[in-house]
Amino acid sequence: MKKENKSKLKIIALGGLEQIGMNITAFEYEDSIIVVDCGLAFPEDDMLGIDLVIPDISYLKDNIQKVKGFVITHGHEDHIGALSYVLKDLNFPIYATKLTMGIIENKLKEHNLLRSTRRKVVRHGQSINLGQFRIEFIKTNHSIADASALAIYSPAGIVVHTGDFKVDYTPVFGDAIDLQRFAELGKKGVLALMSDSTNAERPGFTMSERTVGKTFDHIFAEHRNTRIIIATFASNVDRVQQIINSAYKYDRKVVVEGRSMVNIIETASELGYLNIPDKTLITIDQLKNYPDEKTVLITTGSQGESMAALSRMAADIHKKVSIKPGDTVIFSSSPIPGNEKAVSRVINELSQKGATVIFQDTHVSGHACQEEIKLIYSLVKPKYAIPVHGEYRHLRANAGIAESLGIPKENIFLLQSGDVLSLDKNGAEVVDKVHTGAILVDGLGVGDVGNIVLRDRQHLAEDGILIVVLTLEKGTNQVLAGPDIVSRGFVYVRESEGLMEEARQILSEALDNCLRQNRNADWSRIKLVIRDTMNEFIWKRTKRRPMILPIIMDV
Amino acid sequence: MKKENKSKLKIIALGGLEQIGMNITAFEYEDSIIVVDCGLAFPEDDMLGIDLVIPDISYLKDNIQKVKGFVITHGHEDHIGALSYVLKDLNFPIYATKLTMGIIENKLKEHNLLRSTRRKVVRHGQSINLGQFRIEFIKTNHSIADASALAIYSPAGIVVHTGDFKVDYTPVFGDAIDLQRFAELGKKGVLALMSDSTNAERPGFTMSERTVGKTFDHIFAEHRNTRIIIATFASNVDRVQQIINSAYKYDRKVVVEGRSMVNIIETASELGYLNIPDKTLITIDQLKNYPDEKTVLITTGSQGESMAALSRMAADIHKKVSIKPGDTVIFSSSPIPGNEKAVSRVINELSQKGATVIFQDTHVSGHACQEEIKLIYSLVKPKYAIPVHGEYRHLRANAGIAESLGIPKENIFLLQSGDVLSLDKNGAEVVDKVHTGAILVDGLGVGDVGNIVLRDRQHLAEDGILIVVLTLEKGTNQVLAGPDIVSRGFVYVRESEGLMEEARQILSEALDNCLRQNRNADWSRIKLVIRDTMNEFIWKRTKRRPMILPIIMDV
Repeated sequence: MKKENKSKLKIIALGGLEQIGMNITAFEYEDSIIVVDCGLAFPEDDMLGIDLVIPDISYLKDNIQKVKGFVITHGHEDHIGALSYVLKDLNFPIYATKLTMGIIENKLKEHNLLRSTRRKVVRHGQSINLGQFRIEFIKTNHSIADASALAIYSPAGIVVHTGDFKVDYTPVFGDAIDLQRFAELGKKGVLALMSDSTNAERPGFTMSERTVGKTFDHIFAEHRNTRIIIATFASNVDRVQQIINSAYKYDRKVVVEGRSMVNIIETASELGYLNIPDKTLITIDQLKNYPDEKTVLITTGSQGESMAALSRMAADIHKKVSIKPGDTVIFSSSPIPGNEKAVSRVINELSQKGATVIFQDTHVSGHACQEEIKLIYSLVKPKYAIPVHGEYRHLRANAGIAESLGIPKENIFLLQSGDVLSLDKNGAEVVDKVHTGAILVDGLGVGDVGNIVLRDRQHLAEDGILIVVLTLEKGTNQVLAGPDIVSRGFVYVRESEGLMEEARQILSEALDNCLRQNRNADWSRIKLVIRDTMNEFIWKRTKRRPMILPIIMDV
Repeated sequence: MKKENKSKLKIIALGGLEQIGMNITAFEYEDSIIVVDCGLAFPEDDMLGIDLVIPDISYLKDNIQKVKGFVITHGHEDHIGALSYVLKDLNFPIYATKLTMGIIENKLKEHNLLRSTRRKVVRHGQSINLGQFRIEFIKTNHSIADASALAIYSPAGIVVHTGDFKVDYTPVFGDAIDLQRFAELGKKGVLALMSDSTNAERPGFTMSERTVGKTFDHIFAEHRNTRIIIATFASNVDRVQQIINSAYKYDRKVVVEGRSMVNIIETASELGYLNIPDKTLITIDQLKNYPDEKTVLITTGSQGESMAALSRMAADIHKKVSIKPGDTVIFSSSPIPGNEKAVSRVINELSQKGATVIFQDTHVSGHACQEEIKLIYSLVKPKYAIPVHGEYRHLRANAGIAESLGIPKENIFLLQSGDVLSLDKNGAEVVDKVHTGAILVDGLGVGDVGNIVLRDRQHLAEDGILIVVLTLEKGTNQVLAGPDIVSRGFVYVRESEGLMEEARQILSEALDNCLRQNRNADWSRIKLVIRDTMNEFIWKRTKRRPMILPIIMDV
């Protein structure tokens, strides 16, 4: 008992606070560490050529003897997407609810990690013991089924982590969020609440998922004579269920299109999270056997992703479906920030082909708005508030809500990635900063593209490259061949022969000068002359700054 | 009279229909062409390194003897921004209202074209005669002062072109839109209405600019103890006027910051479009003489542009202003599609520095919503409807409005750039397609970056470049030096020495093989071997496809 009072709980966000995605948080008490979520982030605009971004887990590797396992709140990429990479270094068990685990297992299979990874499915209401921690999974609602909040019991006190959540009193599948359990925990006494901030700037209450189902019914009733195509997030199983419900009601067959959509629907259906009436699903090849007005397509591409099924249909490069005048296309989604233009491009293409495009009232958010956030604070009544999940502006807004509910300012912590928050019932403070970071994944390369490579890609993207090659005689430094200038991404050479010829002449003169003054000039000196001469000439003539790359060979 | 009935009017959109911006439309009747607007477009995401885009005006150059002049509706970049480029080929007079001309003249000065360009300022209500056309300027409202609709009189009938417009019954400066004139023209009989479609998907009515002034007053009243910084569009003179009004009312000094903002305010103020009370404006260097709560900064950067004043303040790289905790920062703007993430980044940075960021009710659109569009159709009662200004989805929505008001479907034309619409009161049809296109401007280069250069930039941006250099002996094809491999933007070389060494060995073997089989292999053959060998090896090892560039020299 004495020992329990001496040690403090440490909360360390290893990602997710400087960017959207890449959620991963370590909870440490003495010899025990548990890791909540292990997500990826999608690359920022300036991360050219990068496929995805995963967290730097040096801290966990350095403390590997303490790590007990991964506890996962739900099956979205920004919470599970880095697992397949991180498990290669940290082969610890994964704990998650059934559907979440099903989605994780699909990923592990792809990475050939299924057999080597221990996994335990946990039910809502159930607890697991990991070292000095006990973790209880609590039912919540979100835009993916089977989402959980966590009550993390440590000798220093209880931390409630909401995961991504909303309050849906009338969910499509399963129960509403377990508000009573939040209240019970609050009565017991909660040290800290870490709560989802994504919609903390939005007043009011997020609408129930069921409202979208009603909209679908209206649209199906109004468009009885056309084919209906609906794009939505692959992982939103409840949304898919509602489309299937409307299709069944209006006697339409359903086709599912897009790889990620097919995968998740298969998993959800096998695990009992989707209820598909017999003979409702048909394959895309059977589509031609039914009249248009008897079919619905559920498809990926709601974010305008150029390779997704809907985008390919809109651009007329889909192998099996092309858009026809009269088609009704529903975007059951809203654009994730950054995707607005891509989505608009697809809408334009669909309209140009004569489709009617609908995007009003066909989506609800999966995140809690201000009134829901207040509700959870008021049930849990934590001593400390630690807003999570969101950009800084959202965390700031969540902190404002906490303050408005009477939590003292000094008990609200806006952490940065790497901050070590040490807390117990007597106090909380940031006591340390551990190493964190983003590791870029490009093709098979994990971490082999860093800032230098990215800076080069940005430079190349902006103005292209001019390569100057030169062969010198070993010893004498006499020019045997060149200088030749080759460019890529700079100007269309055939129409700029004059410019390139002039560049070559000026360069030859500069080289002659340099070598006349110092016959033994070393290569770095010669390269400097090439760079300076070219930079100056090209800037003067074009106001551009292509990368200048001198290459010298000797014979 | 007989002749008048024989010829038809031709309307030819030379830009602006496949993209946002680059508005330019030719009206042709027999020997006369007038050009309405001459705008630029901002580069799309895939136009790497491009500064701006201007229309291809080959059609006008081919018919130069017919061209009478440029008629400009208002002073936004997407309506005037290409003038300075196009005037170099087509030195014809410009007709515009006073403020519009003032803004154009600023641009002409920058391009040293002021003295060589004929210009005529036109008042609202006034008409000009150009060849067989008469053009009347009609007062409208928009997010820039002095905007005009045009009534274009031709022997084939009257075309009304709204320009960009909204209906503001209580404008900040000058008169409301001249609805009576639209009605009179309608009574007279209008052949075609070309109307702004930007907000055609939005129900209702766009709010008056004055409502923003009221919000400013509320914010100023609530934030009496902090500095206020307001970012807005440089060209929105009425918005600036309202900020100055609130500042004066609450006894604050005003600083204007950001080059484009300073330029436009100077011009607007000189021409009498801004009413600035004495001693209200101070310079940025005088700021330190006043307490924070007695100052307002009006600044550029409302779109998150990385080099604009507000972004520099937020990133702490502005020379004279840094954000302090307590500052109130207002975004009097909404993000233009594509800028959402950049704006959010600036908001995060501002919040992190402790500023309160406000963006609710601090902006209204400058474009007509559905009810306003209906109003104009109902006053003008055109025979033909030609929706303009907007993406296809917006044109389509505008067409839907026209149809709902009883204009027969066959009288509504959704034109594409280059379409030649030939019309008179007996009929209208697209009779031809002329050459149009987008010309890319990069630095001083106009049109020297085309698809090949862009494709190279995209390739370089995605995966970088591997350059293979090789010196061969002339005649014998013996390898004298190399192959050397140099990469940029591919991997961080110091950490990938093994990969590069392996590549070199495999390449040497492939070259030996090639030259052993055919000692006289020509260079294109050798280059092909280099490309294929490298592509295969690199893809196998990294799943990336950098550009492979073989360079051979001979000695």
